[in-house]
Amino acid sequence: MNAEIICVGTELLLGDIVNTHAPFLSQHLASLGINVYYQTVVGDNNARFTAVLKQALERSDLIVLTGGLGPTTDDLTKETAAALLGLELSLDETVAARLKDYFVRTGKPMTPNNLKQAMVPKGAHLLQNDWGTAPGLILEKGEKTLILLPGPPRELRPMFLTRVKPWLEQKTASTIRSCEVRIYGIGESELESRMEDLVQSTDPTVALYCKDGEVLVRVTAKAADEASALQKIDAMVDTLRDRFGTMVYGINQNSLQEVLVQLLLKRHQTIATAESCTGGMLASWITEISGSSAIFEMGAVTYANRIKEQLLGVSKETLDQYGAVSEQTAREMAEGLSKISGADFAVSITGIAGPTGGTEEKPVGTVYIGVAHRGKVWVTHNLFARSHAERQYIRKLSCLKALDMVRQTLLNPSIFEENYR
Amino acid sequence: MNAEIICVGTELLLGDIVNTHAPFLSQHLASLGINVYYQTVVGDNNARFTAVLKQALERSDLIVLTGGLGPTTDDLTKETAAALLGLELSLDETVAARLKDYFVRTGKPMTPNNLKQAMVPKGAHLLQNDWGTAPGLILEKGEKTLILLPGPPRELRPMFLTRVKPWLEQKTASTIRSCEVRIYGIGESELESRMEDLVQSTDPTVALYCKDGEVLVRVTAKAADEASALQKIDAMVDTLRDRFGTMVYGINQNSLQEVLVQLLLKRHQTIATAESCTGGMLASWITEISGSSAIFEMGAVTYANRIKEQLLGVSKETLDQYGAVSEQTAREMAEGLSKISGADFAVSITGIAGPTGGTEEKPVGTVYIGVAHRGKVWVTHNLFARSHAERQYIRKLSCLKALDMVRQTLLNPSIFEENYR
Repeated sequence: MNAEIICVGTELLLGDIVNTHAPFLSQHLASLGINVYYQTVVGDNNARFTAVLKQALERSDLIVLTGGLGPTTDDLTKETAAALLGLELSLDETVAARLKDYFVRTGKPMTPNNLKQAMVPKGAHLLQNDWGTAPGLILEKGEKTLILLPGPPRELRPMFLTRVKPWLEQKTASTIRSCEVRIYGIGESELESRMEDLVQSTDPTVALYCKDGEVLVRVTAKAADEASALQKIDAMVDTLRDRFGTMVYGINQNSLQEVLVQLLLKRHQTIATAESCTGGMLASWITEISGSSAIFEMGAVTYANRIKEQLLGVSKETLDQYGAVSEQTAREMAEGLSKISGADFAVSITGIAGPTGGTEEKPVGTVYIGVAHRGKVWVTHNLFARSHAERQYIRKLSCLKALDMVRQTLLNPSIFEENYR
Repeated sequence: MNAEIICVGTELLLGDIVNTHAPFLSQHLASLGINVYYQTVVGDNNARFTAVLKQALERSDLIVLTGGLGPTTDDLTKETAAALLGLELSLDETVAARLKDYFVRTGKPMTPNNLKQAMVPKGAHLLQNDWGTAPGLILEKGEKTLILLPGPPRELRPMFLTRVKPWLEQKTASTIRSCEVRIYGIGESELESRMEDLVQSTDPTVALYCKDGEVLVRVTAKAADEASALQKIDAMVDTLRDRFGTMVYGINQNSLQEVLVQLLLKRHQTIATAESCTGGMLASWITEISGSSAIFEMGAVTYANRIKEQLLGVSKETLDQYGAVSEQTAREMAEGLSKISGADFAVSITGIAGPTGGTEEKPVGTVYIGVAHRGKVWVTHNLFARSHAERQYIRKLSCLKALDMVRQTLLNPSIFEENYR
């Protein structure tokens, strides 16, 4: 089935907002085995929108439309689509009742034009909207299917996932399940070459998405029922785990910090941070996870050398002899933090995030990361560099590495023996 | 002049990446007085791309194309455009020499297909690419103009700003300048009603963009020359300053933290942070600004009460009697931080970011923010709430407010007298 996406909204044409609907819908349609060949943005203009929709009906089987379902006269998606398909609109009493109820509940005034949202094309399949006022619609005529969804992302996303996706699965007579495997600790090109055979797989399919410092692998299986789909996925996930070991850090999880916070909660262990170049980013990442208060002891942002000495007890001699960005300073920062925080894991980061401050010996991107645990410390020397090294990029990669060092220590007792001293 | 944007790339159709080119180009074209009526994404497929481009030539005067200028056979933008306009391609020796030089400099091997990038349609206006290998192109035929730009954002953005924009200005025989005014401290709807008259202005135009907790106002003027355009802008900026006073925090600046860091640098004053619910976010925001090391003394993330006592000297009695989220605790956190850091401004944040932890008396979104300065402390009580209050939203708004309290103190000595005690 070939599909296209049409997003209606003048605010998109003005560049005021980024179109996040298109990638969201494209990804999910792709995972259902539906090819998206075009994404179009058009404004709230009847003539232009009509022309775009007419063309779409000529070239695509499935058309997903977003936006233009509101109560104002600008909102014309439903009316135009119904007119093109030759479907009459009539008031749907159930939708009207839900609307009236909504306005009573929220205490907002209901104006006559609000009832526009209760007008439904003949034969339409209604998609109940529990996140807003405009219901979604599926219109079918011959071989063509139109799916109309409300524009606000807070409504569109749950509507698609809970209303549209199951409907499409039924239509394509298959159950499709997918799973996201997150991998940290391997370069993009090395990963690609070690996964060359897997990416060729057609059932399940395996797709790679690289982002700063980590890789997301999406495994998608199609089967007659859910159990068979999940079985195929599980087998592929096992293969990935066999191949990449603990570099696989999460299955259907959002971030390394989420995984680490959950691990620490499970083990009843705690963490503390002392940051120089990352300036609080690591602490901020950990504490963005709800529930982190139970595992996060404290954080220190010790930019100035004086504070490194005063707060963490880094010795003046170390700072003078080796410099603030050095293995020795990272070690003493972690040791000092361990003492004052009492945390099971005391993490230190000191480096040069740039754009200035680099030297030949220690270029921009040089970062030392220390983890103090059970009276010993593991320090890594990292060089986070690329052609156009950027401050935020170096800071991000430093935080990822720090999170992973703690995670590795929790998972691999041998890491502890090998690296801590 | 009516325009459309066509982004070529299968990765966009798969939803792997978000299309940031479309809003970037749309905004800049709008500021040049050029209306964008369509944004289209199409894959690296000759038949479909040809059809899309053909249609664009029928309905638009100006077509901006991104992507598909690379050396592989997939890259077909230039070839297809030239074919449709009936322009022959030939090798441009200057481009070829630049390419060869690039490969020598970077030590990368040059393959014969790289020379594809030096093939130029007859009569094309070449746009030199100092950020990559593929030059941009402007093709004109009759009333139609095609502008071809490379796909990587790192190349596209400077290419547009330095090569395309001046060319378009010349073509439209006008100079257009715009300016971004940032405002913090006023609700969206209040601001809108107090700017109703200004938004009606047609020369310069005034557009409002609201985002979490702050507002961006873009003022755009068109004139025969730069001086006249800037004069119109300056007059409007003066009006905004008159109307909103120090709520106007920046002109053509990126963020409140950037403005504050610059202010502190200018005044030779320093700052320190003690964060509970924001968990290092404020410190991270400040230190993301290059040069902040000169003004940032230290940061403390004191999640646990024990650490609030131990590190900042908050008294156990205060914590027991008023709780960790209270005016009293915010005050003592700021006072303690002021002592240990020696910073001119010691900022404390303590609150409930949710989703759990709220009570009837102190609901989720309750945040106390303290600023210690010259031996006195100013504490504000905030309730950052909206229908779907989210943890990251509350944390963001808390950081903005903290930055602004310091900024207001620096700008308005009277604030200090009124609020500190």
